[in-house]
Order: sequence, then structure tokens, then C-alpha cells
Amino acid sequence: MKEFEDLDFCKVDIDREKRTGYPEVIYGEGKSVENISQIMGKLIDHHGKVMVTRLSQEKADLLTKEYPLAAYDATSRILSYGGPERRYAGEVMVLCAGTSDLFVGEEAALTAEWMGCSVKRVYDVGVAGIDRLLAHREEITKASVLIVVAGMEGALPSVVGGMVRRPVIAVPTSVGYGAHLEGLTPLLSMLTSCASGMSVVNIDNGFGAAYQASLILQLASEGEKDE
Amino acid sequence: MKEFEDLDFCKVDIDREKRTGYPEVIYGEGKSVENISQIMGKLIDHHGKVMVTRLSQEKADLLTKEYPLAAYDATSRILSYGGPERRYAGEVMVLCAGTSDLFVGEEAALTAEWMGCSVKRVYDVGVAGIDRLLAHREEITKASVLIVVAGMEGALPSVVGGMVRRPVIAVPTSVGYGAHLEGLTPLLSMLTSCASGMSVVNIDNGFGAAYQASLILQLASEGEKDE
Amino acid sequence: MKEFEDLDFCKVDIDREKRTGYPEVIYGEGKSVENISQIMGKLIDHHGKVMVTRLSQEKADLLTKEYPLAAYDATSRILSYGGPERRYAGEVMVLCAGTSDLFVGEEAALTAEWMGCSVKRVYDVGVAGIDRLLAHREEITKASVLIVVAGMEGALPSVVGGMVRRPVIAVPTSVGYGAHLEGLTPLLSMLTSCASGMSVVNIDNGFGAAYQASLILQLASEGEKDE
Amino acid sequence: MKEFEDLDFCKVDIDREKRTGYPEVIYGEGKSVENISQIMGKLIDHHGKVMVTRLSQEKADLLTKEYPLAAYDATSRILSYGGPERRYAGEVMVLCAGTSDLFVGEEAALTAEWMGCSVKRVYDVGVAGIDRLLAHREEITKASVLIVVAGMEGALPSVVGGMVRRPVIAVPTSVGYGAHLEGLTPLLSMLTSCASGMSVVNIDNGFGAAYQASLILQLASEGEKDE
Amino acid sequence: MKEFEDLDFCKVDIDREKRTGYPEVIYGEGKSVENISQIMGKLIDHHGKVMVTRLSQEKADLLTKEYPLAAYDATSRILSYGGPERRYAGEVMVLCAGTSDLFVGEEAALTAEWMGCSVKRVYDVGVAGIDRLLAHREEITKASVLIVVAGMEGALPSVVGGMVRRPVIAVPTSVGYGAHLEGLTPLLSMLTSCASGMSVVNIDNGFGAAYQASLILQLASEGEKDE
Amino acid sequence: MKEFEDLDFCKVDIDREKRTGYPEVIYGEGKSVENISQIMGKLIDHHGKVMVTRLSQEKADLLTKEYPLAAYDATSRILSYGGPERRYAGEVMVLCAGTSDLFVGEEAALTAEWMGCSVKRVYDVGVAGIDRLLAHREEITKASVLIVVAGMEGALPSVVGGMVRRPVIAVPTSVGYGAHLEGLTPLLSMLTSCASGMSVVNIDNGFGAAYQASLILQLASEGEKDE
Amino acid sequence: MKEFEDLDFCKVDIDREKRTGYPEVIYGEGKSVENISQIMGKLIDHHGKVMVTRLSQEKADLLTKEYPLAAYDATSRILSYGGPERRYAGEVMVLCAGTSDLFVGEEAALTAEWMGCSVKRVYDVGVAGIDRLLAHREEITKASVLIVVAGMEGALPSVVGGMVRRPVIAVPTSVGYGAHLEGLTPLLSMLTSCASGMSVVNIDNGFGAAYQASLILQLASEGEKDE
Amino acid sequence: MKEFEDLDFCKVDIDREKRTGYPEVIYGEGKSVENISQIMGKLIDHHGKVMVTRLSQEKADLLTKEYPLAAYDATSRILSYGGPERRYAGEVMVLCAGTSDLFVGEEAALTAEWMGCSVKRVYDVGVAGIDRLLAHREEITKASVLIVVAGMEGALPSVVGGMVRRPVIAVPTSVGYGAHLEGLTPLLSMLTSCASGMSVVNIDNGFGAAYQASLILQLASEGEKDE
Repeated sequence: MKEFEDLDFCKVDIDREKRTGYPEVIYGEGKSVENISQIMGKLIDHHGKVMVTRLSQEKADLLTKEYPLAAYDATSRILSYGGPERRYAGEVMVLCAGTSDLFVGEEAALTAEWMGCSVKRVYDVGVAGIDRLLAHREEITKASVLIVVAGMEGALPSVVGGMVRRPVIAVPTSVGYGAHLEGLTPLLSMLTSCASGMSVVNIDNGFGAAYQASLILQLASEGEKDE
Repeated sequence: MKEFEDLDFCKVDIDREKRTGYPEVIYGEGKSVENISQIMGKLIDHHGKVMVTRLSQEKADLLTKEYPLAAYDATSRILSYGGPERRYAGEVMVLCAGTSDLFVGEEAALTAEWMGCSVKRVYDVGVAGIDRLLAHREEITKASVLIVVAGMEGALPSVVGGMVRRPVIAVPTSVGYGAHLEGLTPLLSMLTSCASGMSVVNIDNGFGAAYQASLILQLASEGEKDE
Repeated sequence: MKEFEDLDFCKVDIDREKRTGYPEVIYGEGKSVENISQIMGKLIDHHGKVMVTRLSQEKADLLTKEYPLAAYDATSRILSYGGPERRYAGEVMVLCAGTSDLFVGEEAALTAEWMGCSVKRVYDVGVAGIDRLLAHREEITKASVLIVVAGMEGALPSVVGGMVRRPVIAVPTSVGYGAHLEGLTPLLSMLTSCASGMSVVNIDNGFGAAYQASLILQLASEGEKDE
Repeated sequence: MKEFEDLDFCKVDIDREKRTGYPEVIYGEGKSVENISQIMGKLIDHHGKVMVTRLSQEKADLLTKEYPLAAYDATSRILSYGGPERRYAGEVMVLCAGTSDLFVGEEAALTAEWMGCSVKRVYDVGVAGIDRLLAHREEITKASVLIVVAGMEGALPSVVGGMVRRPVIAVPTSVGYGAHLEGLTPLLSMLTSCASGMSVVNIDNGFGAAYQASLILQLASEGEKDE
Repeated sequence: MKEFEDLDFCKVDIDREKRTGYPEVIYGEGKSVENISQIMGKLIDHHGKVMVTRLSQEKADLLTKEYPLAAYDATSRILSYGGPERRYAGEVMVLCAGTSDLFVGEEAALTAEWMGCSVKRVYDVGVAGIDRLLAHREEITKASVLIVVAGMEGALPSVVGGMVRRPVIAVPTSVGYGAHLEGLTPLLSMLTSCASGMSVVNIDNGFGAAYQASLILQLASEGEKDE
Repeated sequence: MKEFEDLDFCKVDIDREKRTGYPEVIYGEGKSVENISQIMGKLIDHHGKVMVTRLSQEKADLLTKEYPLAAYDATSRILSYGGPERRYAGEVMVLCAGTSDLFVGEEAALTAEWMGCSVKRVYDVGVAGIDRLLAHREEITKASVLIVVAGMEGALPSVVGGMVRRPVIAVPTSVGYGAHLEGLTPLLSMLTSCASGMSVVNIDNGFGAAYQASLILQLASEGEKDE
Repeated sequence: MKEFEDLDFCKVDIDREKRTGYPEVIYGEGKSVENISQIMGKLIDHHGKVMVTRLSQEKADLLTKEYPLAAYDATSRILSYGGPERRYAGEVMVLCAGTSDLFVGEEAALTAEWMGCSVKRVYDVGVAGIDRLLAHREEITKASVLIVVAGMEGALPSVVGGMVRRPVIAVPTSVGYGAHLEGLTPLLSMLTSCASGMSVVNIDNGFGAAYQASLILQLASEGEKDE
Repeated sequence: MKEFEDLDFCKVDIDREKRTGYPEVIYGEGKSVENISQIMGKLIDHHGKVMVTRLSQEKADLLTKEYPLAAYDATSRILSYGGPERRYAGEVMVLCAGTSDLFVGEEAALTAEWMGCSVKRVYDVGVAGIDRLLAHREEITKASVLIVVAGMEGALPSVVGGMVRRPVIAVPTSVGYGAHLEGLTPLLSMLTSCASGMSVVNIDNGFGAAYQASLILQLASEGEKDE
């Protein structure tokens, strides 16, 4: 049985949903509208749904003409078509340190929702105003998985990590300047965090964090219970 | 109510188990045997168990004299005392690319076991001999969470990530030379992986990976089931 | 006898074919159309063929007016005029991890063809979908020399390197973001690969990889046989 | 009038106290016991006091034999002789994230005391246990100048900076591993902090932070009051 | 009592003036005119004054239409509205190494003035013409706090630091090329300065330096006098 | 059929010779004498020969007692047992820039010989004495494959690359200081070489260069001739 | 006597010629036409000559209208007015590795000429075609000072340095891609050169190299002869 | 005629004095006493003099037994035998910022003397005590060539460069910690200096600076006078 469909310029991985739980997601940057459209077609045929990330407004305008059922969100730059058949129990919380990090926070939030998670957003709770964060302490300790997005020095995940008994996925952002090194500084900083139970994804990779968060809720939903 | 006990040189966080699900773990490097012993004492008093990581053989010999119930493992350099009350459903798989990465793999494996996980080890399955990895394909797809340890170019997590529908936590190691930059190269390489559902912890941080894996199984065990 | 012709702004190395087996190739970036045209003229006079790499569409449009026999390929950004007198035995295989790496893959493929190699392309076989790669295993083991192009974490050459008994030339690409450091991460990653028999060229340097691959087939064609 | 005394190997800056408010301090690392002893002699002659930083136990043992009034502190590795004539109003607070950062914290604390400041120490208040820090909130807001010492990801200064209306001087430490890059990561991280009113000194430079803190209290003591 | 006002996209920290002595300042880069305008409105309501940094001429033109009492300075790119109720005793001196560093020097100078400091500017006194600096020696030794701005090799703060008994805050700038690494070189260079009593802020962060300078004068003004 | 033999701590890849043309080679660094001995045993059983690289004199002394037929070379730190059944036509030339690079040059030379190549050594021909290199010009142009080893600035491969029509494999070494960055500088330098037909391996990786050189001669020997 | 003239935005160093032998040179990048024009005016008043480097064609067009005696060279981007009163004995040779490095080579050549040196240009003599360089060997050994400009791997200065008994000043250029790191690679590479008697200036800093070369010829001209 | 003598392990460049004005100098680090002794023998035979740099006390003790006329200096770690036949007119000045940089300063001073220069030393004149430097201003302006050695932030050469009309060669040292990056920071800092007429050599390379300084005095001595 065929596991992928060979378009001229790429191999669409139609077996992926069976293998990993989710259909392939299209990374929009650097792909032409024609190519995206073709891959979208194949994926909609096979799975009835598709998501495109890092898509510019211009490309999105052309694609939504072709696929009127697709919805585009300008903050996260995500185009989505269709959605989850079910919703996992539990909740993914997306925390954002600053208002400039929202584009990453929303990429994470929309991805997690499209993959079947309930998402709670807690934004603009950078550590330099610790009371704004503490005001949400109760909610924070109730989340199942936490995605913590931060630019600048990237300190938020460490503080959150020490408050909860759930997995924390940290996302550094490219928001900052000078010694921030386009995100490399918070990336490295998060990796050396003194908080346990925390892992890190690439700079601005809200999608990747949400993807892993969804896999975690999927696992929990499928029931690995104490025997 | 007091949340931590103030030793002269540090504050032992005795509230931590309630807050995060696990008692504090002692990072042994750079601490004197006297200090470690004192903290161990406090933690055993409160939780009946304790774990020390990055502990040299010399220090371990002195500490096991004082705490004869503690066990030391020379590969992982972990000293553990007591253990989990229960064992979570599901299984953490620890994969290691090369035989030189075992010290990190074992740090992950022993930590996860001490925290209540069943652990399966699959070692020496670097991608340059892809058949050795594929020989384990079935087991791999059955694991609940996967910790993938690799030095050199750090390619193993990407391959494993594409084979499974479960969260993958990648651990780069300091094993390599030259362009390997003491682990920085596989670290950055893993962060830019083309596989979804994967996150990364610090170089050689087997403990951190296992800690997050345990939190994931803990979440699953506590039952976030579809409603 | 004169070994180079002194244009005002450069010395055209007309002796190069004799010395290294191939005439000089023009690196188009940063050169004016006028200069390129002049050098092309000299090289066509001496060798009857010429190739220009890294050439923009705009410059190519002007040059093909002047040299109607020249052909421009927009993906690889190569302008070629004339071609090989003979074709070497054996086959260069060009593998590409992702569809965004095609511009480098095609630079390699077209260069190798222009230099007299038969080229087989295997594209979109990134390691996160290992089955797509394995589907080509037989062909892969039959290639004489393999050029493996990969952006992101650059893991593909390590996997391919372990599958074959032929030289592998790895080409990192600038395709990626964040921790990818514009190609520096896969570059360093490939250099620390655990696979033997593999060497690396500069980021995006498909031309350089193909050049070396051609020298290898040239050597083989000229017959270094067991005595 | 002569402004410095020319020992054979260095020029002792005896005018420095008049110019900058404090006599020269001797950086002990890399200097021989003989040289240190000679400079100490000159400085005691002129100022009646002297301080040596980064001094090993071995060298200190030899020097305290020669200068029995000098006191050596093994944690901070400071040898001090004599002390301040007066004590400034206000208080320097030294906060330390982890117990392993104490050697830097104590270098700062002892330096500030030697220079005439009252010092309050708040240790082991890393952000991953935010409640330990918050337990000190009232004291923290009362300090005149805050020196915040942190290794690992260096997040503590950002949190403290957002809690106070006084200058914060951040000191990254070399305590950490892997992505910590021997202190470079917290250094850069602190420089990109989202907290205002904060500046940074070199890795492990507790002395430099204390020196600036003392200059601030000196300024305040000399009375720049509203007119 | 509410400590912050929740606009849809951010939480305006209206408690900040009480907590840290100054109302929130708006970082203009990357924020839309609409958002800036809304936050300005809230802050003017609460504090009667507001400052926006890193604001382009285009955005400033739109905002000054809406807030005619606001003044925009094109060199520093600061928009200010209202100002200090009082002026601290003492003086902040802003020194600039080169004429190209003025945009940072002015950001520092205007910020300090807006926060209530008297500011003296000494510009174009790079160390390669040491006499230009020495011509100002008397004034320099009279300043209460010194902000020293330098691009290129960043040597000016070291020289100034050795001339004064007051705190020096060094600001590296992004002005330079090649080995200058967009400001990273003077940043690191200033951090390793041989002058004591000096600390450093992020590249081009004239605002941050002025903020700390103001906190120092505020402390001095509130009178930490010898008892 | 079994493709690898599972020792407790590693999987010996006994299928490797069939797959890649050569049996596994043991990287000695970081492996215990016991482990090396066990793997040697298995490999001798299957292939009648084995090679260990990066082996210290101490370990070698113990292993040669156990395997008296094995020979150890102290410069290259290679232990070899058995050797090639045949010798390929053509010749690998190993060039070394400086006398301090010999340990890498010899690792390359001995590896190539063990794998069946005839090797010619040309040592101490750094580019700062170009005549020493030119004195070998004729031999150089006759080599089939060239391995060019250089520390310091790594300029030799560029010069050699421009003299020949055969593949050049460049090996940067860790010999140098300061701006040499332990080999990173010549590594990057070689990758940006203006010479075509050249590729690069990791710092000090003489083994890897020789391995690829052998694969090239193997290919040539197996005869990919013009048809 | 006044040593500099204080324009509003800068201090023109009119004493410089007396102090260092040459009047101030204007670095044009980032300065407005108005400012440049004002400084030019002052310098022409005092010295009768002036030079502006890194000047765009657009600015040059405006300035040459105002100063019709000024001449602009588009390759080097230098505007010069007036020139040397005398010409030093001896000769500065400017060597360029590639045609793309000419903009730096010409900056060096024109600067040296403006400062009173005779200049000989030898261009397009990169080391990958060593014969083109050797063809100039005799001239090269006759030069008094050599400025060697190279992008890519920066190998040319090492080769030239080994051929001559005169000072070599190496200039790395920003011409290259990938591992070239915008010139950082040849910069570091030149600094670790195995040739003696060579020093290095910043990336693309042809001006700085020529300036030092002129100082050397000035010294020689003023006659430091054996006594 | 033979240009080099081929010892087994290296080619002694006996033609070098004729070609470059000075015999080969032996870099002692990493060479065995036996090898050094052999090369010394050859060089003494041909030139009657020899110098060895970076030589440990242990090796020196053995070599001075063999060559009793050789003298070893422990600060600079130089072994010298014989010396210059003549002394150039003019003077090389070696300035050192700190007392810890003396080992580099002395390497420069002794090398220059051995090569025939008169040397004046001005030590411990770091820029943080600018008066110590200014006290030497007159001498400084009289030197023919200046070698300026500095660790830490490397600011001294910029200040000196602006005071003189003679070439300045800057030498960064490895003395410093943290952000100093083992000398990389002052190295890069010196390269971006705002002073003209200055060039830079590798970290700790006092020898290289002195070598170039000697070539400059040699040139001046041979008389390139105005015609």
C-alpha cells in the first residue's frame, strides 16, 4: 500500500496521520501559492482537513479564494481548514511574557486548538511585573500542559516551571535586540533553566510546542492510567 | 505554614512535592559531602526518599557509609534512596545513539524509574546504521514517551520523531570533538529538527528529560480522558 | 605560453581546463552583466562552453539575448552554454531532504550534468519520514557518488552515509530559522556526523559538491583499476 | 606631586583614593605572593588598609603570616586588611539565586562591607521557587541598592528589578553547564532583561558590582538632595 | 485594589509608579499606532505623563495629531508627554564617543530629563583624541552619575571610569562594522573593563542607562545620609 | 540473518563490510580496554582484521599484550590488526602544512594504507614557504586523491586545490592558538575556499578523510569507465 | 591654542595633522550631506585638503556640486579634495585575491595615494591559481609595504608574507557566503597565519591598512637610518 | 641550489634569511627537546644565531645544557642564541596595559631586541589610570614603532594610536575572564578601534608584533627617503 503521494516537487505523506496521529502540516514560508494549493488539495482529499503555518496575508488571500472554507488568522499567520473530530480532556495553557510575543503565542494556541486541545491564554505576564503572573496562579496550577512563550531574557518559563506539577514547554521568541541575538539568548537561557520538568523548542516555534502539547494530551486521553 | 526549611547555606524546599509532584532532587556537583548529607537528611525526614545526581564515586562512597540504604550507580553517577510508591501505566523508552552516550541515557533511565516510570532501554542505535534502529521499530511505536539521547551530529531524535505518535524529548550529549563544540552542535541541530512533536533539554541533561517524561506519565495516569 | 588572459578587471584562467580538467566557472553574484558577458566571451572562445552560477533572472535575461545558445534554469540560477563532450560511466545521485532545499539540489544536479555526469535525483526524503528514504534504498546503494543536500538539522547525510559503500558529499543549506543560524547548524552537524566516508562543503554550495563528484567520476573513468 | 609609586613591575596608584574615593584593590589571580606582598605594603603605608580579591588559600596562608592583621575568607577568596572609617546610610542587599553562586555573592558582600556599606544577604532564592523570594519581598523593597547574583539562566534580576524602585546590579555566574556557556548565557540574558533600572557586570564579578553599589551609597551619603 | 488595567492586548501596569517610582514607559517598536495610542491614553489618565521610545517619525506624526501636547525628538526617536514634577539635585552627564552614537546619547539624555534629572552632554570625545576628553576633565569629575556611550571598540567608559568617584553606566552602540559584530564587541569589551565602579546595559539601550541613573539620583535625593 | 552481534554494551555491526565495503573501525577514546578488547575479538572473528583509532599508549600496551599481532603507532595513535587483501591502483597523497600537524597526517596515512591504498606523504609544506610546496608540484599533480592537512589559518588546501584535477579532501587541525579557536577557524576557512573540487571533514579527522579517499579509490578500482 | 573646532554636532580635530601627520579623514557612512559638507569646509580651511570614505554616489553627487574640485571614485566610494604635497620614496603594493574584493583594494590604493604613497596594484591573484601570483613574484619582493586584500578563506596574505622581507598588512573582506560569516572567517584566519611579519585590520578596512602603510613610508622617508 | 634542509620530520628553511631578512624562528610549544635541538643545530650552522619562543622552563634547562651560549628568559619564555649584527636606528616602544600582560610584552621586547631593534618598555599604563599613561606622553610620541599590549577590554591601543604619528601594532592578551573570552574580546575590540594607523596580531602574539616592528625599522634603516 502506498504511503505517500508523489507530486512532482514533493512527496505528500498521506500515511502520516496513521503513523503519528496527525496529518502533515504545511510550512508556508518559501513555498509558492501553487505548490501550497496542490498539497492542500491532496491533504483535504485524504484527511478532510489541513493547516498551513507561516503564511503571508498575500498568499492567504489567494488561497482562501480557492478554498473558501479555509480561515486565515493574521496574528499567527495560520490558515486552517477543517478541524478536530474530538476535543481532548484537559487544557493547554499558553502564557506570553510580552505583547510583542503574541504572534508566537497565537501560533501555539491556534495549532493546539486545531489539533483538538482546549486552550487557555494568559498574555502579558512577563516576570518584571511578577504580580500580573501571580494573579493567575490558581489557573496556572490547573493546566494540564503549559506552553510558555517569552522573548527578551526568556525568564518566564523558569518561574512558571517552579509553580506547577505539569510539563512546561518553553518557546523563545525573536523579539528583542542587541545581546538578545535574535532569540539565541532566551533559547540558551531556557535550556539552562533551574526549573525541572521543562523542555524547549526552536525560536518562534509556537507550532512545535503546540504539537508536542497535543501529543501529550492525546496520550493522556488514550488513557495511561495506574493499574 | 512553613514551606521550606532554612539550613544555614540553603533553603530546603519541603513543600515542593505538594506543589510539583516530586520532592527536590539534589544536584551533587560543586556541593560538599557535608552539605549534601544535611540536605539528604532533611529530605528523607520529610519524604522518605531522595535522589542525588552528578555525584562522584568519592563522594558517593562517603555518603553510602552514612546512608547504607542509599544505592549508587557509577555510570549515571546517581545516588538514590527510597523510591516511588507506585508505578505509572505506560512506558518511557530511552534510546541512545552511541555507546559513549550511555552515561546520559542511564541518568535518564534511573531518574525515570526513581520517579515511578517503567523504562525500556534501546542503546547503540545511531542513524549511521539505520537497520539497528529499524529492528526496534515495533517497540518504539509502542512507547508512551521517548527520550532520545545523541552526541555527535544529534540526528537520532529526528528519525525517531517521525516514527511515533508520542512525545519525543531529545537530549544532546557532550560526546564528540571539533565542530561538535562540546555539545552545542547537536543541541542546535535538534532544535531545528524537521520532526514535529519533539522538544529539547540542555546538553547531557538526562535528568531533565526524565523529569519531564515522568510528569507526562503522571498526567496520563491521573487521567485526562476524553469526556 | 600565456596561461591567462588579462581583462582589465580580471585574469581569465584559460589554462585551467588543462590543469584541473575543467574550464573556469563564473560566479555570477556581485558581477555586472558587462563583466560576465566579457568573461563568457573569452571562455567560449577558448573552450566552446561556459557556465555561470548564482545568476539572477534579470541578468540572465540580458545575457541570453546576447548568447542565444545559453540556457537559464531559474531554480538553480545557472546559465549554461555548451556542455560535456562525453559522459562518465557511473552515476551521481543528488538527494534532497526537503522541497525548500531544491534550489541547492538543482545547482548540484545541473553542474554535475554540465560536467559530464549522469545524475539521478531523489528529492523530499527527509529523515523525519524515514520510509520515503528507505523506498529508494536499492537505487541509493547503486549510485557511484552521492550528494546529500539538507537544511534544518542536516541529518540526512548521516543516514545515507551508513547505507552505502560510495563517497558521500554533504551540502548544508540555509533553509531553516532560529537555532539553524542560517545554515551554520547543519554545517557543523554534518561535520560531526557519525557516518564514515563523508565530507562537507560550504552552505548552499551545490556547485562545489557537484564539482568534486565530477572529479571523482572523472578519476574513475580514467581508470585507476586494480593491477 | 607624585601620583603613583613605581615598583619595578607595576605602578601603585597612590592617588586613587583621592581621585575615585577608594584605594586600589589588588586582583590576586596571576600575581606572585611576593608581588602582592610588596603592593600590600605600599598601600597599607599610604591608606592604612588594603583588600586582595581572587586569592587562593595557599597564597593567603603565606600573606597572613606576613600581615597578621589581615583576614582571609575562603568562600569569597578575599583577604582584607583594615576597613572603612565610616558606614554609609542605607543598605546594600545581596541576593543569590542558588547555593552554588555563594562564592560570588560573598565576594560582593564582603567588598561592600569593606567599602563602608551595611549589607543584607538573601540567599538561595532562585525563581524556580518563587515563594522563597516573595517571602523576602518587604525587605527587598527597603534596600537602597540591590546586587542580584545568578548562574544558570540568570532570571532572578528581572524578577527583582520589577519589584523595587532602587538600582539593581546583576551579576551572572559561571555556575551551570552545556548551553550555559560558562556564564555567557546568563550574562547576555540579563542584558536583555525586560526589567528597567538594571545594569550588568562581568561573569562572577561580585567585586565590581559591590564597588558600584558602594559608589552609589557614597553619592547618596554625600547628599544630593532636592533643593 | 486593581494593580493593572487589562486592555485587550496588554495589561497596563498602573501600579508601577508606586512600586518603582516611575510610570510604565512604552517601547514603540513593533507596536501599532492604535495600540500605542490606547496605552498612552490609559497612562495619561493615571499619571498625567507618558513617554514612548523607539518610535518612528511616521508613527510619531500620527500620535502627535492625537496628542498635540506630546513632543517628538527625531534623533532619539522619543515621544514625550508631560514631565517631572521636580528635578533631582546632582547631575547626570552623558558622554558620547562619536557623532554617530548621538541617537543613543540623546535617548539617554531625554529619558533622564523626563525622569527629573539635570543632564549635561559631552559629545564627540572618543579616546583616539584623548585631549578632547581631557578638556572636559573638571566637569566630568563633578557629575553625579555618568552615562558613557560608545560604539566601535567601546574604550571610552574605561578611561572615564578611572577619572571619577561616581557610578559609570556604559552603553555600547551598534555603530561599527566587521569585527564590531553589531555592537557585541564593545558590549563584551565594556564588561571586561579594567575600570571599577562601572556596569553595562544592552546595546543601544540609552533608555535603560538613563533609567538606572535616575534611580540613583532619586535615591540620593531621598537622602541616604550618614547618620 | 543477523546483521549485528549484540554485546551487552553495544551492537557490533558485522554486516558493515558487506554494506559499506569496510568493517567497523573502533573509536578508542572514551572506551575501556575491556570493551575495546571485546569488540576487537568479535571483529577479528568476522573479518580477520580490525583498526582502533585515538588510542592512548597506555591502552595500546594492554591490548597488544592480548593481541600480539596488533601493531601500535604512537604518532597517529592507531592500533591495527591485519590489513587489506589487495591494494587499489592509484595513490593517495597526504600533505601536511606544519610539523605539528603530523599526528593528523599520520592518522590519515595509516588509515588509507590499512584500507588498501598506496600512500605518499609530503610534509611540512605550509604556504608561508611556497617554494617547499612547489618543489613537489609534479608529484602532486600525479596523485589520485589528495588529503591536505593544515592547522593555523588552513590555507594549504586552497593552493593545492588549484594545482590539481583530482579530488581534494581538506582536514583542519586543532594546532594553533588564540583566534584559531581550537581549529574552528581553519575549518570555516577551508569551507569558504576559493578552490573548486574540495570538501572538508571535521577538525583533526584524518581518519574520516582517509576513509573517503579509500572509497574513491575503491570506486575507481571497481571500474567506472567511459562506455 | 585651540586644538579642535566645535561644530554643533562634532569637534573637528584641527590639531590632528600636527599630532599624527595627517588631517582627520571623514567616515561618510551614517553622516548627512549637510554635516559632511560642514566638516569638509572646516578641514579645507585648515589643511587645504580632505578625504571622505564610504560615501554613496548620491551623497557624492551633492557634495561635488558644492566642492567642484573634489573627485569621487565609485569603486572605492572615496571623495578626495586636494592631495599630498610630496610623494614618499618606496612603494605600497596592493594585492587583491579576487575581482569582487576590488572595492576594498581601491579604497586602500586611493587612500595611500592621497596620503603621498606611490601605489602598485596587483589584482585577481587568488591562491587557487598560484601561477598568477608567482608571475608577479619579482615585483612583489620589491615593494616597500604590502597590503593584501582577500575575501573567501583569506589565504593570500600567508603566501605573500612568506615571499617578502617587508611588512604585510592583511585586509579580510566581506565577500563570501555561508561559513565565511560575513568576513569573520578570513579575519580570524589571517590572524592565525603561519607567516611572520604580518598584521591585520578590520573587515573591508582598506582605509586603515593604507593609513598604516603610509605611516610606515612616512617613517622611512623621515629617515631612521643606521647610525 | 638547495633552499631548505630536510630533517626527517621537517624542512629547515635555510634560505629564509635571504628571502625575508631573518632566519627561521622556532616555535617551541608542542615540539620535543630532541627536535628543537636538531633544528637549532642546523640554524646555528647556517646563521650563527637562533631563537626559540614559547619554551617551557623544563625544556629550556635541557637545551641550555646542550647550548651553553643560549640564554633563557622565564617571563617571555624565549631562548635566544646569538643576536643582531647591527642595531637599527629608531626605537620600538612596547607598552603594556597591566602587570599580568608582561609575559606578552617581554616576548615582544626580547624578540625586537634579538632582531636588532632598540626597545623602550612602558609598563602598567592601563587606560583606567590615564595619568600614568600621560606621564609618558613625550617619550611615546618619539618612538618609531609602537607595540601596544593589552588584555581585559583592550582599550590602550586606541588611546595610544590617537597620540602618535607612527605605526601602532596592537597585541590582545589572554588575560581576563568571563566576557573576555580568552582574549577574543580585546582582539575584536582592537580591530574595530576608532584610531587610524593601527593593525592587530593574534592573541598573545608578542613575537609577531615584534617581527613586524623589526621589518618596519629594517625598511626605514635601508632608507626609503624622499627624493
